[in-house]
Amino acid sequence: MSQQKVVLAYSGGLDTSVAIKWLQDKGYDVVACCLDVGEGKDLQFIKEKALTIGAIKSYVIDAKEEFSNIYALSALQAHALYEEKYPLVSALSRPLIAQKLVEVAEQEQAVAVAHGCTGKGNDQVRFEVSIKALNPDLEVIAPVRDWKWSREEEIEYAKEHNIPIPINLDSPFSIDQNLWGRSNECGVLEDPWAAPPEEAYDLTVSLEKTPDTPDIVEIKFEKGVPVALNGQYYALSQLILELNEIAGKHGVGRIDHVENRLVGIKSREVYECPGAMTLLKAHKELEDLTLVKEIAHFKPVISKKLTEVIYEGLWFSPLTKALLAFLQETQQYVNGVVRVKLFKGHAIVEGRKSPNSLYNEKLATYTKEDEFDHQAAVGFITLWGLPTKVSSIINNKKVTNV
Amino acid sequence: MSQQKVVLAYSGGLDTSVAIKWLQDKGYDVVACCLDVGEGKDLQFIKEKALTIGAIKSYVIDAKEEFSNIYALSALQAHALYEEKYPLVSALSRPLIAQKLVEVAEQEQAVAVAHGCTGKGNDQVRFEVSIKALNPDLEVIAPVRDWKWSREEEIEYAKEHNIPIPINLDSPFSIDQNLWGRSNECGVLEDPWAAPPEEAYDLTVSLEKTPDTPDIVEIKFEKGVPVALNGQYYALSQLILELNEIAGKHGVGRIDHVENRLVGIKSREVYECPGAMTLLKAHKELEDLTLVKEIAHFKPVISKKLTEVIYEGLWFSPLTKALLAFLQETQQYVNGVVRVKLFKGHAIVEGRKSPNSLYNEKLATYTKEDEFDHQAAVGFITLWGLPTKVSSIINNKKVTNV
Amino acid sequence: MSQQKVVLAYSGGLDTSVAIKWLQDKGYDVVACCLDVGEGKDLQFIKEKALTIGAIKSYVIDAKEEFSNIYALSALQAHALYEEKYPLVSALSRPLIAQKLVEVAEQEQAVAVAHGCTGKGNDQVRFEVSIKALNPDLEVIAPVRDWKWSREEEIEYAKEHNIPIPINLDSPFSIDQNLWGRSNECGVLEDPWAAPPEEAYDLTVSLEKTPDTPDIVEIKFEKGVPVALNGQYYALSQLILELNEIAGKHGVGRIDHVENRLVGIKSREVYECPGAMTLLKAHKELEDLTLVKEIAHFKPVISKKLTEVIYEGLWFSPLTKALLAFLQETQQYVNGVVRVKLFKGHAIVEGRKSPNSLYNEKLATYTKEDEFDHQAAVGFITLWGLPTKVSSIINNKKVTNV
Amino acid sequence: MSQQKVVLAYSGGLDTSVAIKWLQDKGYDVVACCLDVGEGKDLQFIKEKALTIGAIKSYVIDAKEEFSNIYALSALQAHALYEEKYPLVSALSRPLIAQKLVEVAEQEQAVAVAHGCTGKGNDQVRFEVSIKALNPDLEVIAPVRDWKWSREEEIEYAKEHNIPIPINLDSPFSIDQNLWGRSNECGVLEDPWAAPPEEAYDLTVSLEKTPDTPDIVEIKFEKGVPVALNGQYYALSQLILELNEIAGKHGVGRIDHVENRLVGIKSREVYECPGAMTLLKAHKELEDLTLVKEIAHFKPVISKKLTEVIYEGLWFSPLTKALLAFLQETQQYVNGVVRVKLFKGHAIVEGRKSPNSLYNEKLATYTKEDEFDHQAAVGFITLWGLPTKVSSIINNKKVTNV
Repeated sequence: MSQQKVVLAYSGGLDTSVAIKWLQDKGYDVVACCLDVGEGKDLQFIKEKALTIGAIKSYVIDAKEEFSNIYALSALQAHALYEEKYPLVSALSRPLIAQKLVEVAEQEQAVAVAHGCTGKGNDQVRFEVSIKALNPDLEVIAPVRDWKWSREEEIEYAKEHNIPIPINLDSPFSIDQNLWGRSNECGVLEDPWAAPPEEAYDLTVSLEKTPDTPDIVEIKFEKGVPVALNGQYYALSQLILELNEIAGKHGVGRIDHVENRLVGIKSREVYECPGAMTLLKAHKELEDLTLVKEIAHFKPVISKKLTEVIYEGLWFSPLTKALLAFLQETQQYVNGVVRVKLFKGHAIVEGRKSPNSLYNEKLATYTKEDEFDHQAAVGFITLWGLPTKVSSIINNKKVTNV
Repeated sequence: MSQQKVVLAYSGGLDTSVAIKWLQDKGYDVVACCLDVGEGKDLQFIKEKALTIGAIKSYVIDAKEEFSNIYALSALQAHALYEEKYPLVSALSRPLIAQKLVEVAEQEQAVAVAHGCTGKGNDQVRFEVSIKALNPDLEVIAPVRDWKWSREEEIEYAKEHNIPIPINLDSPFSIDQNLWGRSNECGVLEDPWAAPPEEAYDLTVSLEKTPDTPDIVEIKFEKGVPVALNGQYYALSQLILELNEIAGKHGVGRIDHVENRLVGIKSREVYECPGAMTLLKAHKELEDLTLVKEIAHFKPVISKKLTEVIYEGLWFSPLTKALLAFLQETQQYVNGVVRVKLFKGHAIVEGRKSPNSLYNEKLATYTKEDEFDHQAAVGFITLWGLPTKVSSIINNKKVTNV
Repeated sequence: MSQQKVVLAYSGGLDTSVAIKWLQDKGYDVVACCLDVGEGKDLQFIKEKALTIGAIKSYVIDAKEEFSNIYALSALQAHALYEEKYPLVSALSRPLIAQKLVEVAEQEQAVAVAHGCTGKGNDQVRFEVSIKALNPDLEVIAPVRDWKWSREEEIEYAKEHNIPIPINLDSPFSIDQNLWGRSNECGVLEDPWAAPPEEAYDLTVSLEKTPDTPDIVEIKFEKGVPVALNGQYYALSQLILELNEIAGKHGVGRIDHVENRLVGIKSREVYECPGAMTLLKAHKELEDLTLVKEIAHFKPVISKKLTEVIYEGLWFSPLTKALLAFLQETQQYVNGVVRVKLFKGHAIVEGRKSPNSLYNEKLATYTKEDEFDHQAAVGFITLWGLPTKVSSIINNKKVTNV
Repeated sequence: MSQQKVVLAYSGGLDTSVAIKWLQDKGYDVVACCLDVGEGKDLQFIKEKALTIGAIKSYVIDAKEEFSNIYALSALQAHALYEEKYPLVSALSRPLIAQKLVEVAEQEQAVAVAHGCTGKGNDQVRFEVSIKALNPDLEVIAPVRDWKWSREEEIEYAKEHNIPIPINLDSPFSIDQNLWGRSNECGVLEDPWAAPPEEAYDLTVSLEKTPDTPDIVEIKFEKGVPVALNGQYYALSQLILELNEIAGKHGVGRIDHVENRLVGIKSREVYECPGAMTLLKAHKELEDLTLVKEIAHFKPVISKKLTEVIYEGLWFSPLTKALLAFLQETQQYVNGVVRVKLFKGHAIVEGRKSPNSLYNEKLATYTKEDEFDHQAAVGFITLWGLPTKVSSIINNKKVTNV
């Protein structure tokens, strides 16, 4: 009756299903909470499964639009690639899920929040730092980290408590997915000399089976936001899903990464991000056309930091807001259309145009239309190289005049 | 007789052929100097052509090994991609050519050095800053920048002086090439909305015509230096040329870039770097396996600076040496073999192994072999998130205890 | 009559007085324009002097508030110290002066703008880049750079044209001053082994003559803006002037700097910034108390870039706005009071307090009030040091288990 | 007899004296080990005290020269100031002490190493990460963190075991000291609004009591190493101690810092570093004279990282070696003499001279000796400002030609 409530991040899988019972055993009333961030789950099924197992209440929340417009968009505009490879798939959804859990917890007057992460991944950090930032009074429980069972013991417990065992239980993979991509770790992938098996992939066709005819898409951006595909406007979440489809068909966006986790170990991960990788390439090319050189050369510093901050679970640090303020300011110029050829695993930018284009044919040309002041270069070079020249005179001891 | 000598960087093309005469008109004895940095020129032909036109002496220098072992290798180990795209092809050869010109000038007791660059490119800066750094007493002459002729006037002058007109004179392209790649600008490329025409490419097969069977190569690295292909050892220059061949056949390494030149304008360039792009991918993956996290996360800062310094003509600034000292120190760990699948324009790293691998299956695994201390994570998260939590408590005014 | 107009940045000194006549000789009608950015000039005198010499119109503009609220404040909040020493005195006023010149030029339908800088300083760059950014159609004229006279020839010309010769003409110094400080170069200062003579200073008392009793000031900040001194509210320009007075009396803010100019040479400069240095110290200490660690450690990267961008004349580059957006976002937390002891050339922060203080005595204390979780450290250290440990095991070949 | 050995970092104070007994209680034979890194301890007394309390062996090691030549020198050449204030006093000695402890442990075939740090400071991290890097097989014990006694309980235990209680037991301060400075935390210092009391200081005279006559010292540097004072050569450790004396007498080097600890909290610390601060100022000024602009502007990035790496206990990460390789390369130019006036808490650099000086009076002068090419500036400015100008034309929609 007057038991304390815990809000559990519920995925419908074995771990969090077992966690419902395990938390009940600890004396909590369990409120299940499942978010849709674009992984294409059957939410109604998951909702009922939680109740069947014993949750006193079960929330399902469609967060696709919020996920796209805030999290995925920031990653896109920052060209966020952790260690120059990983587009932050799971790292982006964790703070949003944490926020929704905290909102439900406050509404339900729960005393704790629970998540299904183990003790060696990044996600536990992202969840717990986010939850503590949003409501430091909430306790955080990590059943999977705490129960210390072997896989066999967990299954034993599930059977004893009538928790349905998933049919793909012997899958060697551990998957996480959202609009921005799909991550996969474990099993055979743990040998970095072995190529990932074809079964590790789901969103992308293998190169060998991609069509022999390309698709050409024109992506329109307004202030750095992709707003239309081939002239048709979409909500951002829908646009990303569309691109996942088309680019996935052409095998775009497979990533095989030996990465440094926040918790100090290297792990080998396989990602598929067809839509994300296509958008990242297109957006970068539009920036190449529209950003002034000084921004183009400094923005990567901001991007690297923002990428690390997000990867490392610090979305709710005030630093994130300051980095995003920089980013926002730069995006007003990023307007235009990019033409992308999707073919054989590539998203090839073939053309880009913009009302804010800083590329000026009359300055760049080698024809007689040339408006560039060639003689200015002489003075420029003299002063540009002056420190090197003076240093050389002094330190290389050549006899000379400055 | 007692005329002053100038050493001219001679390519065999129209501009520098005309420059021989033009410099003679100005009263100089011209010493021609042509370097082979892997572009596959007919050096003997060029040597004689210079003499025929009127040079008093004609040097040809094979600098392929020096170019590979110092310049290309530094770019490889730094993962040097200017604006995240351009592997510094021409930027790498300019300081080496400058150095050879200065050496010849000192040997010949010349008073000046001349190059064939125009007034709006990067190469004039790279040549002149390098020459002044190496010998500040040498005058630098840039005939093409100075004579201010239209193309027609230049051809007129050539005809008058019996200078052979190249048969491909109406080629719309301006090419530069070395072991590390080939760059192409001008003509139809000046419209960034238009895709580059197939004729713009020479080292790489178009995706549509690549073979349907991949090549798999194993690249062996010792201290960050690629030393063997498929078990066979090569001098570095030879290894790069081999890879240009194989990877080029599979269409690897086409780059289409709207870039910010040092002289303040944006230009559109097309590059082909089949060997370079393959090596860059392989080397990065081996570093992902072997570099400690702290180096992996800071090295990109060094790389970005080194890339800019080289692009901007400052190879002979003392800064370059200091950046290279950092780089060298990191490469002792980069030993091992990388297996690369060359297919449909991709250089896909399928496997990597190393005696210095920091990837530890027993730490990374989710099987019962796991040796990672899961409980350590609890303490880690508490302290990692503490600043964000305290900031949240204070500034979000939630009533709570720390 | 129908002559073209030029707007001249007029200081009242010899160079720009001569420039009025020189520009008339070139066929222009000269509109003089003098800004007050806090250097304490007699504006009415300057206004009339310009007219007497021959200007057709003479503007004087009080820009102290604008200079303080935008330029000096940005420098303060960024802790802008070029090469860790120079608080950007002149670099801050140039873009503002350029902006006012352009406004006057547009109002007067002038075709050109003129400034009195020489060809080897930074200020010519700052003026010209700013003017071209604000109105690329305006021509820029630099009489002093163009006329190539010796000092004697200039004086000769002045006498011939009845231009008053300043009585301190043989002063060895070249001064620029505004609210944020005073810069001085030239003459005896050109030997970096010689100490600056006492006459080089004007705003600060020499250490030897400072009072033996300190002044204590409490500076109140709201969102990073200094708003009150010892409880009394001031407009920012007034507050800075007050502090120049008090801190100058105690000899605070003398700076002797061998600096790298943008134009490639090193020069030796002497600055006095009593108010600025006091505010910079106080603001930094309040940030130490109020900024979350992640911002505290990344903000210096932004500050360094902003400082360089301003020093290098790029205030009107879009990059500046993006950097300022980051900065602004961080300042909302910077509220509180700092107590500063001004004594013997020091601005010593003795105390700081803030409603946003993140310093928590209960976390920091070593008494029994301690609320810090000491055991969390064990887990933290294990994971924090894990990459170093694994690297050591692998690469130092100690026999061990992970 | 056949008990396992532990090597204890022994300071002679109460905590580590109690730790000897406490470790014995746990069943270890205790080997005490005390390092002299310049804090001026009575080593013989400490050695015997350990034996008296019960250590089976007692080492005292003079590490002053090693500490100076490697650790303090790196900090000096990097201008290492954590959060722009703290010269890394304790952070520098921890890795060296760890190294000596490991050496003794290996020699003594001990199974563990013990240190006296609590659970909320930085030093526990520095010790443990260093020890694990040097010998991952050694266990690390932190008695003070583990025993969880109140101060009263600790004293009780000491009395019961005949451990001498220091006479200054009620000192409110917690001190650490070495050649590079002295740190002090705790007690009254915990209120950041309160000024540190005079008793908090030991190495420096208060401003009010400093002499009215300055001392002038000339410091000679060879390749960035301070080698002589006023013409007399010293070993580095001796030179620093000399400067501590002279500069301390003039009140130089007091620092009052609210700092972000690695473990996530802010703490308030008071430091005294008279010699270090004097050397840091002098070395920076010599670099201002001798480093080429490109190094001068990038070295701070390296310095910031190195400072953080050292502060955060990662001295033995391979990153440190790579950063030091950069640093070393830059120091070959840093030769010369700096004249410093020590007076009223200031170390004022009045003059600097160097055979590698890049300051060139003939380039810098405004006299007729001027060799600078003023017209080069015109071309330089045109290209330098070109991106800003083009951006302005396009995005501000002023009608104009480029």
